[in-house]
Amino acid sequence: MAKVHIVGAGPGDPELLTVKACRVLAQADIVFYDRLVSADVLAAANPAAEFVYAGKDHGDQEVVQPWIHDRLLEYARSGKSVVRLHGGDPCIFGRGAEEWQFLAENGFEVEIIPGVSSATALPALAGIPLTLRGVSRSFAVITGSCRSDESTDWSRYTAVDTLVLLMAVRRRADIASELILAGRPADQPAAFIERGATPAERVVETTLEEIAGAGVEVESPAVLIVGEVVRLRRLLAGELEAVVSAEVC
Amino acid sequence: MAKVHIVGAGPGDPELLTVKACRVLAQADIVFYDRLVSADVLAAANPAAEFVYAGKDHGDQEVVQPWIHDRLLEYARSGKSVVRLHGGDPCIFGRGAEEWQFLAENGFEVEIIPGVSSATALPALAGIPLTLRGVSRSFAVITGSCRSDESTDWSRYTAVDTLVLLMAVRRRADIASELILAGRPADQPAAFIERGATPAERVVETTLEEIAGAGVEVESPAVLIVGEVVRLRRLLAGELEAVVSAEVC
Repeated sequence: MAKVHIVGAGPGDPELLTVKACRVLAQADIVFYDRLVSADVLAAANPAAEFVYAGKDHGDQEVVQPWIHDRLLEYARSGKSVVRLHGGDPCIFGRGAEEWQFLAENGFEVEIIPGVSSATALPALAGIPLTLRGVSRSFAVITGSCRSDESTDWSRYTAVDTLVLLMAVRRRADIASELILAGRPADQPAAFIERGATPAERVVETTLEEIAGAGVEVESPAVLIVGEVVRLRRLLAGELEAVVSAEVC
Repeated sequence: MAKVHIVGAGPGDPELLTVKACRVLAQADIVFYDRLVSADVLAAANPAAEFVYAGKDHGDQEVVQPWIHDRLLEYARSGKSVVRLHGGDPCIFGRGAEEWQFLAENGFEVEIIPGVSSATALPALAGIPLTLRGVSRSFAVITGSCRSDESTDWSRYTAVDTLVLLMAVRRRADIASELILAGRPADQPAAFIERGATPAERVVETTLEEIAGAGVEVESPAVLIVGEVVRLRRLLAGELEAVVSAEVC
């Protein structure tokens, strides 16, 4: 029976693909990829494969996702080697788990290939470790995006040492205000990593208070980190390799 | 100047190493590795390298860590190519961040190579995605291990959808009791993944109540996942590849 590989593409640098991701990409007949998958990563795939863009920037998510499911079913039935490529890790947001569930319910075999999550790797690459003995013993990863019938009570997360917020750029001022109201210090350091792990990466170090005051200019896609660990960047970023490798596997 | 690579070894399967980790391992003069790094992963390194075990099972952490720091300083000064290999991701617990900080304070250049975190990959490989639209919009990763002068208030984490607890086997009954007391449903599903991503992997599906009642037998190392997403395993695990590949990069 045909098998669909649901694969993590990592944060963007093709050298942060796993060996297994490289292997299935090199053997793929169909590569079905998301908006956040970089061209350098796609270059690691079989050049003779059919490349299909599944990005969600071209329409409403609730219209695009059923279209993606239809395509997955069609590809799974084709008997070809299918790689469904998600930026970062496929089971951390991005609806990889939903696609896995859908294919399993339809009786298709799925192989999950975990990837290096952008939520954990982009902060580290920018000099911000999510955990540090004596400073941070926990971190939470939360999406700022929600369905029209959902809302987020940010006070729920205020007690976690380090917060990593994805898709939170648009609502950043509200989120920061709610975190302060819920008890996080207004002067707590925070950082946005814009276009992380690409040559255009920009890191904005700030505080919750500044974000709440709508004074921080930043563009999607960006990861927001809130917590005392952000202070380490001053020491560690000086030691960082700024180079994003262009090599492929 | 010499450079130390602080590298994530991933969850154990050598095919879940990154391409970059493989490259620096193949060029390493010294490989300084942790207890949770598998033999299959070490087989990807330059066979002529000096392999030094930095595991912490042979003594008190507070004695071993300064010894590790001394070794890192010695290796960094040697001018050799040093790979400090941590299981999973080097900046998610495991003290990789502390070692990075120490080397930076001593003026040495560090390159961080993020890895596939065991905290996120082991659940997915066992059929438990940490996030799922409509079910889990957040997850937290927390260590159950603490310094003698610290304690953990588990009620702080009760509102996060999915909890991933590392090093929590010994205190599992207390932790589950505290989570129930703090408001998590007693019948909420939970799963231990013992020896994840190895041929000896064993998954125990249970509930908070059963763990609190001290009725769940499990051995370290194990990851504990608590949340509604655990229910998906029944559907998804049937679709899983049980094979842990023995190939190296």
